[in-house]
Amino acid sequence: MLLFEKDTSILFTGDSVTDAGRAHPVGENGIPGMANSLGDGYVNLIDTFLNVYYPELALQVRNTGISGNSSRDLIARWQQDVIDLAPDYLVVMIGINDLWRRFDSPGVRNWHVLEEEYAQNLRKMIAVSRDNVKEMIFLTPYFIEPNTVDAMRAMTDNYRAICKKVCAEAGVRCIDLQQAFDDYLQYRHPCYIMWDRVHPGRIGSMIIARTFLKEMGFDRPVI
Amino acid sequence: MLLFEKDTSILFTGDSVTDAGRAHPVGENGIPGMANSLGDGYVNLIDTFLNVYYPELALQVRNTGISGNSSRDLIARWQQDVIDLAPDYLVVMIGINDLWRRFDSPGVRNWHVLEEEYAQNLRKMIAVSRDNVKEMIFLTPYFIEPNTVDAMRAMTDNYRAICKKVCAEAGVRCIDLQQAFDDYLQYRHPCYIMWDRVHPGRIGSMIIARTFLKEMGFDRPVI
Amino acid sequence: MLLFEKDTSILFTGDSVTDAGRAHPVGENGIPGMANSLGDGYVNLIDTFLNVYYPELALQVRNTGISGNSSRDLIARWQQDVIDLAPDYLVVMIGINDLWRRFDSPGVRNWHVLEEEYAQNLRKMIAVSRDNVKEMIFLTPYFIEPNTVDAMRAMTDNYRAICKKVCAEAGVRCIDLQQAFDDYLQYRHPCYIMWDRVHPGRIGSMIIARTFLKEMGFDRPVI
Amino acid sequence: MLLFEKDTSILFTGDSVTDAGRAHPVGENGIPGMANSLGDGYVNLIDTFLNVYYPELALQVRNTGISGNSSRDLIARWQQDVIDLAPDYLVVMIGINDLWRRFDSPGVRNWHVLEEEYAQNLRKMIAVSRDNVKEMIFLTPYFIEPNTVDAMRAMTDNYRAICKKVCAEAGVRCIDLQQAFDDYLQYRHPCYIMWDRVHPGRIGSMIIARTFLKEMGFDRPVI
Amino acid sequence: MLLFEKDTSILFTGDSVTDAGRAHPVGENGIPGMANSLGDGYVNLIDTFLNVYYPELALQVRNTGISGNSSRDLIARWQQDVIDLAPDYLVVMIGINDLWRRFDSPGVRNWHVLEEEYAQNLRKMIAVSRDNVKEMIFLTPYFIEPNTVDAMRAMTDNYRAICKKVCAEAGVRCIDLQQAFDDYLQYRHPCYIMWDRVHPGRIGSMIIARTFLKEMGFDRPVI
Amino acid sequence: MLLFEKDTSILFTGDSVTDAGRAHPVGENGIPGMANSLGDGYVNLIDTFLNVYYPELALQVRNTGISGNSSRDLIARWQQDVIDLAPDYLVVMIGINDLWRRFDSPGVRNWHVLEEEYAQNLRKMIAVSRDNVKEMIFLTPYFIEPNTVDAMRAMTDNYRAICKKVCAEAGVRCIDLQQAFDDYLQYRHPCYIMWDRVHPGRIGSMIIARTFLKEMGFDRPVI
Amino acid sequence: MLLFEKDTSILFTGDSVTDAGRAHPVGENGIPGMANSLGDGYVNLIDTFLNVYYPELALQVRNTGISGNSSRDLIARWQQDVIDLAPDYLVVMIGINDLWRRFDSPGVRNWHVLEEEYAQNLRKMIAVSRDNVKEMIFLTPYFIEPNTVDAMRAMTDNYRAICKKVCAEAGVRCIDLQQAFDDYLQYRHPCYIMWDRVHPGRIGSMIIARTFLKEMGFDRPVI
Amino acid sequence: MLLFEKDTSILFTGDSVTDAGRAHPVGENGIPGMANSLGDGYVNLIDTFLNVYYPELALQVRNTGISGNSSRDLIARWQQDVIDLAPDYLVVMIGINDLWRRFDSPGVRNWHVLEEEYAQNLRKMIAVSRDNVKEMIFLTPYFIEPNTVDAMRAMTDNYRAICKKVCAEAGVRCIDLQQAFDDYLQYRHPCYIMWDRVHPGRIGSMIIARTFLKEMGFDRPVI
Repeated sequence: MLLFEKDTSILFTGDSVTDAGRAHPVGENGIPGMANSLGDGYVNLIDTFLNVYYPELALQVRNTGISGNSSRDLIARWQQDVIDLAPDYLVVMIGINDLWRRFDSPGVRNWHVLEEEYAQNLRKMIAVSRDNVKEMIFLTPYFIEPNTVDAMRAMTDNYRAICKKVCAEAGVRCIDLQQAFDDYLQYRHPCYIMWDRVHPGRIGSMIIARTFLKEMGFDRPVI
Repeated sequence: MLLFEKDTSILFTGDSVTDAGRAHPVGENGIPGMANSLGDGYVNLIDTFLNVYYPELALQVRNTGISGNSSRDLIARWQQDVIDLAPDYLVVMIGINDLWRRFDSPGVRNWHVLEEEYAQNLRKMIAVSRDNVKEMIFLTPYFIEPNTVDAMRAMTDNYRAICKKVCAEAGVRCIDLQQAFDDYLQYRHPCYIMWDRVHPGRIGSMIIARTFLKEMGFDRPVI
Repeated sequence: MLLFEKDTSILFTGDSVTDAGRAHPVGENGIPGMANSLGDGYVNLIDTFLNVYYPELALQVRNTGISGNSSRDLIARWQQDVIDLAPDYLVVMIGINDLWRRFDSPGVRNWHVLEEEYAQNLRKMIAVSRDNVKEMIFLTPYFIEPNTVDAMRAMTDNYRAICKKVCAEAGVRCIDLQQAFDDYLQYRHPCYIMWDRVHPGRIGSMIIARTFLKEMGFDRPVI
Repeated sequence: MLLFEKDTSILFTGDSVTDAGRAHPVGENGIPGMANSLGDGYVNLIDTFLNVYYPELALQVRNTGISGNSSRDLIARWQQDVIDLAPDYLVVMIGINDLWRRFDSPGVRNWHVLEEEYAQNLRKMIAVSRDNVKEMIFLTPYFIEPNTVDAMRAMTDNYRAICKKVCAEAGVRCIDLQQAFDDYLQYRHPCYIMWDRVHPGRIGSMIIARTFLKEMGFDRPVI
Repeated sequence: MLLFEKDTSILFTGDSVTDAGRAHPVGENGIPGMANSLGDGYVNLIDTFLNVYYPELALQVRNTGISGNSSRDLIARWQQDVIDLAPDYLVVMIGINDLWRRFDSPGVRNWHVLEEEYAQNLRKMIAVSRDNVKEMIFLTPYFIEPNTVDAMRAMTDNYRAICKKVCAEAGVRCIDLQQAFDDYLQYRHPCYIMWDRVHPGRIGSMIIARTFLKEMGFDRPVI
Repeated sequence: MLLFEKDTSILFTGDSVTDAGRAHPVGENGIPGMANSLGDGYVNLIDTFLNVYYPELALQVRNTGISGNSSRDLIARWQQDVIDLAPDYLVVMIGINDLWRRFDSPGVRNWHVLEEEYAQNLRKMIAVSRDNVKEMIFLTPYFIEPNTVDAMRAMTDNYRAICKKVCAEAGVRCIDLQQAFDDYLQYRHPCYIMWDRVHPGRIGSMIIARTFLKEMGFDRPVI
Repeated sequence: MLLFEKDTSILFTGDSVTDAGRAHPVGENGIPGMANSLGDGYVNLIDTFLNVYYPELALQVRNTGISGNSSRDLIARWQQDVIDLAPDYLVVMIGINDLWRRFDSPGVRNWHVLEEEYAQNLRKMIAVSRDNVKEMIFLTPYFIEPNTVDAMRAMTDNYRAICKKVCAEAGVRCIDLQQAFDDYLQYRHPCYIMWDRVHPGRIGSMIIARTFLKEMGFDRPVI
Repeated sequence: MLLFEKDTSILFTGDSVTDAGRAHPVGENGIPGMANSLGDGYVNLIDTFLNVYYPELALQVRNTGISGNSSRDLIARWQQDVIDLAPDYLVVMIGINDLWRRFDSPGVRNWHVLEEEYAQNLRKMIAVSRDNVKEMIFLTPYFIEPNTVDAMRAMTDNYRAICKKVCAEAGVRCIDLQQAFDDYLQYRHPCYIMWDRVHPGRIGSMIIARTFLKEMGFDRPVI
């Protein structure tokens, strides 16, 4: 049974995977002028599924992801982009930029968010927001790279483990997205999804949306 | 069981509902540069479903819809945009512009395609192409208007009936999209889907994709 | 006899129907650089009629409509966009966005302005401004949809009734625009005026201008 | 009684006064996409009046004016922009650029169209087209300058006289626009209409539309 | 003998005739990047003459004209755009917009600067700045219209007379530009200089530059 | 006494010094729309001087310079850009790009036009056109560099000498521009005129215009 | 000792790695206007090294790479982009797009260039051009992926082997670029060079330039 | 042996030669999105050399040059663009605009930074920053003009001497760039490097990078 009750609101926040070109200051699933302000990624797809298959719920979906954000950046705007919006449900996907910069910008150390700070940032988000929402849900970072000895895949696995551990300790739901991508990579090379192996494109967005909705109790036949 | 066999190609053609901002001269589901050249409508969604749930088939999906086209316009470019591409499967959605101009441009009579010509155009398409493809499939025009006494809804129903009749006479599969929209309009006002009640947006594209894929034998669990 | 005396000023304010692409911060009927800063809608047309047929009056016409505004938005800018401009005559058309969002954005409840608040907002406008102008005039919202059982038409009728009732109670003139549109829809389908059935385009702007000017006592032969 | 019968077409052609930003290759009064392809001048206004007050006629209005055209330029494109369109009624306004260049570009003699050539060009247009339309109508050039000893006003008067004389000889209707402008200039300075005293803007377009429609037998109350 | 001594600075200010597309915040005759920041009008031409024929003086020329300014607007920015720049010589041309708006925007009375206020504004400029510069020089407004009974020409003559009278009373030099234009209009129609009869274009800029430099004692052979 | 008779035409052609942003296909001194189609260089300045000081002549001035052209490029378009325009007077400035490429593009030998070919190209221009115009006039290339041992200045001197020699042999007038620049460089560094020491800017354009007009017999007082 | 003699020309052609934003139709190392027409990749870097360290050779360097090209595309334009330019030395890098499309566009089989065709295409290039140049040199495709069991790396290794084999059979020099990248990847993750692991960016361009110049006998100290 | 230790940061600041189109507010050698934020000049080239040949050092390189800056401008932003960034190594190139304006903008005396102020500005930079960095290094201004009697070359030599003298007095390392350019100008004309003889382009950037890196102890073979 679907987790979300009628007339509740769901806020998604995070980095470019969530952002996906959303409107500013806040992406909304309302349609004045018919432009879709939720962006062109997994949030849009989730909202479409919810509206087509559960139209009677009239859920409010919002998006405050910002491209390039690390967990440090997200903490800095947590008040205005999460708390002030007072969502019923809060979904957070953050972390890939914390570690990606260590590989693509090794010299710019002030852009790196190390493991310890990453864990602290997640803990702060939970401490501040868990009690003000019906439920808070984390989506782990992932890397579209099946080679587990790749240095960046290995480090993503570490951050992913941190995310799951912090959530487990706090009793917060955490959805692991890596397995869903690994399953798909049995059939296609990572460059089919996206050349940079991070942004999900339309294929990866469907994978994320499906994984999320299944966990949320989506229970109506799609096709 | 899904109709499409491994390594076959599917061509969608029609008007703006199919076009949806596709690349020119031909929208492809290949990804050089990662831009999605299939546009942002139901063709894209169908291709995403096929790639995520049937990755082993490696289907080729193409799109040659052009915004504003009537059946008369489509006939005029049938050679280069359909025949020359030699698809295995051919899907056609055409007709709404044939009649819409009668309502929004009553004075420009040379833009109107009347019922008789519409039927003839469909028959020509079938005559030329049916034997050169594994299967040819029509999608009926639809109008996102539940009021059946609305003059344009009534005329859409006429053209829709013509489309079904011509297909039936020729033994060509025809999928009626109107019912799927009517079902949804029990829950939402037409302006939720699109202010102009013609373009499907993301909600209507999901409705079209679902209806099409169900008819095509899509048989894997989505969520 | 025309209501407006020589050298008086008329301010129009409201939503996109009034805005119509006017200049900012204030649309004026002066012409430095020859661009028409009143926008391309009914305000422009009214000003043109007044200038061509009553050139000796030298009326000042201004426009502070803003696209997308609800009555709530208009209240928020009433001081700077109405009071500070100190017009002799004040014309207000507001309300369609108050209710439209309930249909095209059902999930975004904070965008909805319900009936009660709509009435209150109108009362506030009247309370603050009626005594500071020679006359305050309301134009009702309208919906270019002849089917009175359409849910949005029905709700527009409700808001329209509220507008008329609030004005009647306060002794403020209120011009009902719906009838003029209904008359015209006997001859043409709504999509001839505008696909979205809300924005008036050039046809609807002429209908609004005519209705307004007739009520204002326009008494010179046009053609 | 209005000259134009139900379902007939009217073509306007000429220079920038007619053009007014129309769509190419042909401005139409049909509305796919809702942009007004007739431009923003007197043709648009005439079409609006006809549609609002005579909706049952469903007249087709077209515009092939091109900015900067002299009668020599218009002759050069007469085949494709007039004859090929086969209008029922043909309205031509041409001549101001024939003489304007003599004042603003005195050195560029190849841009000047002298009186004799102007007369010949008009005669050619009449000879070729009069018998192929229900009626051909000329609108004289005008100059928004009340000072009749101004050199350019005087020359405009000459060309205007030529236009009327050629039409009279051929038995073609010719509408003199200068008087309507002169009437209005009793109340306002020319720069109120347009700084350059040639382009009509919204005020002058209303003056032209009114003059034309009165001559055409427009017989319904406007306001 | 030229008025300006070596290494002195000259500031020009006023409306669009002076502005002519100058750089902001201040137009300078220095050339980093080689773009001419003085605009494309008479100031540029004066500076070019001074640099080509008096290169040893190394005069600093600046421009703070702003398009559309009336004398009221100029007073409002006098501190930052005149006083703060501390020029040795100050040249002011202002007034045409004070009166032009009375003709092209009759309804917008708050844009009109009447004769009395115009005189007061000029007096304020003189009172504040005359003693802080080596010399202050006014250029009168002009109208490129030889017909002295034209209403706007007549009013320009009034404002011109005010400018000369205020200067005469204060003992400030005032250069009358109207005569130079009238001389030229014996040979060409006003539209040869500029369609709007106000902006000087390249021909009028040369006329202004010549008149100004002659008065300033330019004494070297040009050609 | 000025060389040019009433109602004659003068054509300037060459490279970027002549081009200066002119209109295409041909720069004219006519002003439909008021944009100056002669570009922003010496041709514009010459035309302005002629129009302000000899308005009664109504000379036609045209410009077909193209940026980057060498004498080889100019020969290739001589028919359409010179002969077809049938000027009364023809003025040519060409050559700097013939040699500049030898310094800024030493490896691209096919861009170099050596001395011998330069001479031949000039001879061809003369042979074809001298007898079809009232007079043909060459302006030598120049380099805004006072250091005569600079390698590019020295080579410019060579090409300049060739230009003068070819003209002398053919009895064609040739105006040497280098001296005028050298005179000015006694007062200012080359970078004051233009950083690249080739394009003349507003200062160099005045120098060229003055030198040309003096040679043409300009005999009216400028200031 | 450097392979290239004084005054010879070198042509680089291939795909986006070579293209790098070069000018069209041909990238040149000449500098009219100072824009670098060789693009921003390894060709530019090689040309800079040659010009700074061997200025006396005045080598002509050209670039006709086109982004997205496969060996099939390159064959199709070989005549105009290679043969017609008649270079002394010819350098070709092609092949990555032949195989990349097999991974990122599995459904678009007509974009795939299989191993056999790749070999044939290379053989054609050699057959046509080897005898018309001083020397023809191939650069192998490479993939910035150290994991040799990655499917695309493995296939790149196959195409690379084909390239070397075809060259060896024909006695044409072939420079293997993969080893240089593999060496560097010991220190940095592939995403440091480029997220897509194909385009070389500034780091990879230096690696390619160094490898090429070493093989060409570059023998002067750089730093 | 290279001066810079592992994990240290180097900041370059100055004028357009350093800026070269860098990102704002600070150019970094990190690569989110893969755009090179260091600009396209010598800083980029130095960073590329350091990353390709000393990848194990992971140096942080930053750029805060701003086009058009004089030493006066640089002092004004020293706090935020140098001190706040707390670099380990600081490299400054400044001065050419201090003197260039004296030649290209002789009249704008407030843009000139004379010798004495230049010296003072350098002393201030040293006094404030020397003790807060591991080492501070100056690069002298240069002029790409081999003619030492050219007035601007002579003045550049003066400023260069001042830069060296101030550094010598303070015991700060100063690298003279002029000699490296003079060496190269034996082979090529200044316009080969850049038409304006100031900006270094790709050739001059390589010359600067080489000179700097040699002085810094770069000790690995490049090719």
